[in-house]
Amino acid sequence: MINPAPFIDHTLLKPDATEAMFAVLCEEAVEYGFASVCLPPAFVPFAVKRLYGSEVKVCTVVGFPCGYNTLHQKVTETSELVALGAEEIDMVIPVGRLIERNLLLVEEEISQIVLASEQVPVKVIIECCYLDDDLKRRATEVVVKAGAAYVKTSTGFGPSGATVADVRLLAATAAGRIGVKAAGGIRDLSCFWEMIAAGATRVGTSSGVKIVSAWHKLQNCKD
Amino acid sequence: MINPAPFIDHTLLKPDATEAMFAVLCEEAVEYGFASVCLPPAFVPFAVKRLYGSEVKVCTVVGFPCGYNTLHQKVTETSELVALGAEEIDMVIPVGRLIERNLLLVEEEISQIVLASEQVPVKVIIECCYLDDDLKRRATEVVVKAGAAYVKTSTGFGPSGATVADVRLLAATAAGRIGVKAAGGIRDLSCFWEMIAAGATRVGTSSGVKIVSAWHKLQNCKD
Repeated sequence: MINPAPFIDHTLLKPDATEAMFAVLCEEAVEYGFASVCLPPAFVPFAVKRLYGSEVKVCTVVGFPCGYNTLHQKVTETSELVALGAEEIDMVIPVGRLIERNLLLVEEEISQIVLASEQVPVKVIIECCYLDDDLKRRATEVVVKAGAAYVKTSTGFGPSGATVADVRLLAATAAGRIGVKAAGGIRDLSCFWEMIAAGATRVGTSSGVKIVSAWHKLQNCKD
Repeated sequence: MINPAPFIDHTLLKPDATEAMFAVLCEEAVEYGFASVCLPPAFVPFAVKRLYGSEVKVCTVVGFPCGYNTLHQKVTETSELVALGAEEIDMVIPVGRLIERNLLLVEEEISQIVLASEQVPVKVIIECCYLDDDLKRRATEVVVKAGAAYVKTSTGFGPSGATVADVRLLAATAAGRIGVKAAGGIRDLSCFWEMIAAGATRVGTSSGVKIVSAWHKLQNCKD
């Protein structure tokens, strides 16, 4: 088994998290070699400084977690965060508009954010827990069309997080054209592998240290 | 008993709510005489049109529900929403900064949003579920000092909503200098009255129709 770390966005998005906790998050990300730290907009400058010179990317969120800010707001938030040094942007679609079947509005929003993000990869959270399978497929098509880099299952704030079935559905629809990020409720190594096996190319979790430690233990057993 | 309606912000902040649901929210607010509709930023223009000529105010949210957007973002969001016609702003403080005891930063943020809101009343959500009583008191003092109109208990997105004890504590600290808004989990008439008795001057709830209908029934019984 390969090392899970490069697949993991090391994530801390709790409203009550403090700077000391984000400092630990950044240290762990370097130590374990995670793909990125995923943290709140207000802590992007802090993470940029802490991770200077490392390979760990700074990932943050836009329109998070509800997705119902004005488009103008989401676009200016994206521009500001990229200017501050964010290297990956996880945005939330306007879920209610998708449920209304207003696909054009959803596509327009993603396109504008992709434009505002310049070369920074955009992951688009479609919040699967509110969608039927038909809408999950349509949303993934829209995400591909709008030029985003990934479709992402969940915010972790909804009634449920990533499921293996959803990851499989999104990966089948994306068909290699974009990445698939699984997030929400992925708390151990076996769950991580299930997501990868289902087609996830990135995993967002606050349990990255636990997952990689479990992997190291398994490696040591085999040696 | 007096009519609960004028104390109620008729609230719909679910990520999956559709325009049709916001249309019903606005109709109900006029029919029942609620203080305001409280809805997502992206639906402010819609509500402004729908409520034109009525007494119902358009209330929306800033930095909601996590409070960890950049200050620049929260300020521009406030300005945009006021320009779009929002008549009340419910903002979320950076809770982690309060927990770090960085009271100055919290006060500065509220002050800037109060300034950006011009004459529009600002309600400040301190998200009590993450705070001990000392921090709830300190936060309320900061809210008063920064010139906001209300201190508000909860977003409704945290692990718990308004409690009678919290409303009592906030009201005692505010001591009539600002209003107290109770929100989160207030779903029936008896809970509504408990909050008012504890010192709430405004109540945010998605159960306003049920609450006012229960009150009407009681009135009819007495006639």
